[in-house]
Amino acid sequence: MQEIVDSIYHEMRARTERGKVANYIPQLACVDPNQFALTVVTQDGQVFNAGCAETLFSIQSISKVFTLTIALGKMGDTLWTRVGREPSGDPFNSIVQLEHEGGIPRNPFINAGAIAVADAVMGHNAPKETLAEILHFVRFVANDDSISIDEKVAQSEMKTGSRNASLAHFMASFKRLDNPVDSVLGTYFHHCSISMSTEQLAKAGMFLVSNGTNHCTGVRVVPEHRARRINSLMLMCGHYDGSGEFAYRVGLPGKSGVGGGILAIAPGKASIAVWSPGLDKIGNSKLGTEALEMLVQRTGWSIFGN
Amino acid sequence: MQEIVDSIYHEMRARTERGKVANYIPQLACVDPNQFALTVVTQDGQVFNAGCAETLFSIQSISKVFTLTIALGKMGDTLWTRVGREPSGDPFNSIVQLEHEGGIPRNPFINAGAIAVADAVMGHNAPKETLAEILHFVRFVANDDSISIDEKVAQSEMKTGSRNASLAHFMASFKRLDNPVDSVLGTYFHHCSISMSTEQLAKAGMFLVSNGTNHCTGVRVVPEHRARRINSLMLMCGHYDGSGEFAYRVGLPGKSGVGGGILAIAPGKASIAVWSPGLDKIGNSKLGTEALEMLVQRTGWSIFGN
Amino acid sequence: MQEIVDSIYHEMRARTERGKVANYIPQLACVDPNQFALTVVTQDGQVFNAGCAETLFSIQSISKVFTLTIALGKMGDTLWTRVGREPSGDPFNSIVQLEHEGGIPRNPFINAGAIAVADAVMGHNAPKETLAEILHFVRFVANDDSISIDEKVAQSEMKTGSRNASLAHFMASFKRLDNPVDSVLGTYFHHCSISMSTEQLAKAGMFLVSNGTNHCTGVRVVPEHRARRINSLMLMCGHYDGSGEFAYRVGLPGKSGVGGGILAIAPGKASIAVWSPGLDKIGNSKLGTEALEMLVQRTGWSIFGN
Amino acid sequence: MQEIVDSIYHEMRARTERGKVANYIPQLACVDPNQFALTVVTQDGQVFNAGCAETLFSIQSISKVFTLTIALGKMGDTLWTRVGREPSGDPFNSIVQLEHEGGIPRNPFINAGAIAVADAVMGHNAPKETLAEILHFVRFVANDDSISIDEKVAQSEMKTGSRNASLAHFMASFKRLDNPVDSVLGTYFHHCSISMSTEQLAKAGMFLVSNGTNHCTGVRVVPEHRARRINSLMLMCGHYDGSGEFAYRVGLPGKSGVGGGILAIAPGKASIAVWSPGLDKIGNSKLGTEALEMLVQRTGWSIFGN
Repeated sequence: MQEIVDSIYHEMRARTERGKVANYIPQLACVDPNQFALTVVTQDGQVFNAGCAETLFSIQSISKVFTLTIALGKMGDTLWTRVGREPSGDPFNSIVQLEHEGGIPRNPFINAGAIAVADAVMGHNAPKETLAEILHFVRFVANDDSISIDEKVAQSEMKTGSRNASLAHFMASFKRLDNPVDSVLGTYFHHCSISMSTEQLAKAGMFLVSNGTNHCTGVRVVPEHRARRINSLMLMCGHYDGSGEFAYRVGLPGKSGVGGGILAIAPGKASIAVWSPGLDKIGNSKLGTEALEMLVQRTGWSIFGN
Repeated sequence: MQEIVDSIYHEMRARTERGKVANYIPQLACVDPNQFALTVVTQDGQVFNAGCAETLFSIQSISKVFTLTIALGKMGDTLWTRVGREPSGDPFNSIVQLEHEGGIPRNPFINAGAIAVADAVMGHNAPKETLAEILHFVRFVANDDSISIDEKVAQSEMKTGSRNASLAHFMASFKRLDNPVDSVLGTYFHHCSISMSTEQLAKAGMFLVSNGTNHCTGVRVVPEHRARRINSLMLMCGHYDGSGEFAYRVGLPGKSGVGGGILAIAPGKASIAVWSPGLDKIGNSKLGTEALEMLVQRTGWSIFGN
Repeated sequence: MQEIVDSIYHEMRARTERGKVANYIPQLACVDPNQFALTVVTQDGQVFNAGCAETLFSIQSISKVFTLTIALGKMGDTLWTRVGREPSGDPFNSIVQLEHEGGIPRNPFINAGAIAVADAVMGHNAPKETLAEILHFVRFVANDDSISIDEKVAQSEMKTGSRNASLAHFMASFKRLDNPVDSVLGTYFHHCSISMSTEQLAKAGMFLVSNGTNHCTGVRVVPEHRARRINSLMLMCGHYDGSGEFAYRVGLPGKSGVGGGILAIAPGKASIAVWSPGLDKIGNSKLGTEALEMLVQRTGWSIFGN
Repeated sequence: MQEIVDSIYHEMRARTERGKVANYIPQLACVDPNQFALTVVTQDGQVFNAGCAETLFSIQSISKVFTLTIALGKMGDTLWTRVGREPSGDPFNSIVQLEHEGGIPRNPFINAGAIAVADAVMGHNAPKETLAEILHFVRFVANDDSISIDEKVAQSEMKTGSRNASLAHFMASFKRLDNPVDSVLGTYFHHCSISMSTEQLAKAGMFLVSNGTNHCTGVRVVPEHRARRINSLMLMCGHYDGSGEFAYRVGLPGKSGVGGGILAIAPGKASIAVWSPGLDKIGNSKLGTEALEMLVQRTGWSIFGN
């Protein structure tokens, strides 16, 4: 496995077409695009690293996997009265679908959906308490208490978050949010600003590899059926309007973030995190996707084959 | 396995809420809704039947899996210049997306996409030759020369196919079709009118279970990567605007038809066909989906767990 | 008045930017773009011509004013159960609105709406009889029996009319048409292929100048309120997605055609026809619009001033 | 004229179907629906009142006519780089069009467009100064210094203005606003909260009757061509998605507000204000529209006849 991971790293290091770093969040725009990291943690807990696997990056939308897990833990299937679970067929920040469907977002991974989930996680708590809870959960599943929020990124997002503010106010106009728009946005922008390394992130995904139990720690995080369902949502909706492409090329449940990270799950086999800041046109890590495609070709881990 | 199949059959036989039989194609509207059939063919070729597994029904959109396979065999990845591979987020017969995206359908399984695939399969042949070729392929993968087209259903569809005619003329207006609209529609309506039993259909899906090779016959039908990709398209887009729901509840690649059939693939494990004519609101077999949900619960075959 | 008409003609003759001749109907694409004609017929019946005011051109969508008038005469306000009377906010050939509103076109002047009107005019008659009736009406209002249909243009349109065929089949799928799609399209393409000169066209518009009575002939064509309403529809919807622009710049009810003609009505003052084949981006005659803008500036005929 | 006005008032007083009072702004919801007022001011300055023509009501969107006039005075035609002038074909608060057209609203009278106009009117001034300027202008054209803003309504709107906040943030995300979203919304909500009587409102519209000059006061407010253009925009877009219907039935440029008021202009004849709080489905005053329809029938003032 280490050989495969190393070979992918070497191929990626040589690439010159690396996509474009997200520039609409100023704090993300200054990240060096020439970085690459890959971590594979196999079901039995072995860790295989390549590249700067300990460098922290902004996990952005990958955090939505964790908030979805928390929300499902809190309210179970009633969450689905607030957000759907179908692919959207629209860009990640589209508001068209919201208007046509009464302010209910298509799925928990488009921005509007993740804002609705953040509101659900809040219950009646303040943003500060909610963020403490989210951070506690991420540290728990990653088994790493050093994980924290990058306040500079959060502030940068809040200043430039007009589109997300528009989505939140739109849902509020349909009375779809329990908490004030500003509190929900504060929670959302902050949980998107969690910083992690690929090693931390891959470890945090372990509970999705083994039907809800983290084999490294032996702890059950979610019931079996819920782990499968979170994986299905990642596959269907985890890469915005490029989810079909990712399923076609990679064939693993995954969730990307505009920070350039991707968390992918090979059920029964491994949790994988990859990071490279350059994005393709749709907003998914260019080299990250290519690295995962290679990894699946060389390991045969696609969920669509045997 | 026979026990599981039987128990599902008995539960389904007792159901009173069976959905509504498709009524927009007159010939389908007169099918008795109280029928149910389930066939599981395991990777090693064992067949497990329950219900009227030899009764022929109209496979309708399930035929799109076969025409897609033929088209990919003929033109490989250049097919993707004619049709996309993303979920559509719209009903199966929507024309909105076509206008917004220059007459290129979102994926090969919505109606517009399947019409584009039918055109691709035709090349420069007449509908008659093309249909002979499609039928030959279906008989080959099912290893059953008795499979044929129900001409009455085809005629019934042609008479009532205004929406599909609209889609085809729309694509033609963007010069997206190589063949005359009427020829393409003739091909499309006829291949949707193939009649099969669940046993025939489950056998026909075997090549998708084992990376492109039918283990029953030992014949390779498509290369390994293509089998995985067809499975990924079935998962992402196989149930129209209910694909996310199906992935969430069942967790297997599948393709439904308005005749009430569903073909589902458990990679490395089994090919499954189920049939019950009553449809849910989105147009997928109500009992068929429920039966598959049970089957996966009892076998643990979800591709999202291990 | 003749002086004004002549001065506009001279200015227009000097123009080099003349827009682009419609090229999607082959028979129209070969018209010489350097032609220009302007006719003003004042309420009292005086005729003022400039340019090639006797040259015949294809009136295209301007014919929709006449078919609307006939349909209102046949079925009165029940026509409005088949077609709306709001501006569409979409291009003339858009199908998006149709899907969102159950197959009922927004107004009688977008293509889908005019197809619905053609169907209404047909009643249970064949296209041939219907066309005879339409032609009879146009000859009657223009007081000129030489007006006829250019069969070559009609044939050219039928061969290239995929988009209109798509619209018609789409409405048929919602059961919005009483007659077979091909008959309705035949009627539609033929009435769009009527050839007229600006002099004939301006005369044909006279009944809309004087509350429904043609002052030249003394004949009442439609009741007073209907003439006003047809004028209001021309203002609101007569120039497709450029109707607001036309109202803003010209300020008269008008109807354009892709053949480069425009019929404009100054209530109580004059009927005006202008022709120049080059079109702007939206599909309205470029020089025709500019000529009308000048005419209104010099005469003060805007309906928005006094 | 007084006779006509009185007869309409008596007919309206007897009506039982009065539509529904706007309920999404709490302060407006408590207005008594049984009120009706009509004022006609003829070009020569004669005032004809019926009903409670001195009762103040919230003019809401009618204020957009005044802010548009101010913005055109400040920046002339460059305003049209910020907002279009086509009917939208969508409800007044729709965001779909904004997404499809890069954050530029269709016209100055839908909510998004009026927010863009408010931003343009602000220049670099604070909301307070801007509101003073707007109020000054309204008092000037109405020749009445008692007109003021109802602060309670403004506060009520700000608390419930999620949909408008969403529109403003959406435009901000496309960098279409010069001022902070909260300042623009503050300006917008306040100018919508101006209170006027029908007599004040009809007087304020006088400059649009006579090509830009108020004949009562003898003062030129805007150049001739601008008055005509504002009238054309009112006709095309003044009643949201019911503008075609209003043009068809009434045939006068007009602007409605959800407070139940309508300002209508008969060029060369009269300025008319009507008020009745109950709204039809689209959000226009039900009795107000009916009263105007009667008035035009009895006076022959339609701009589409002579």
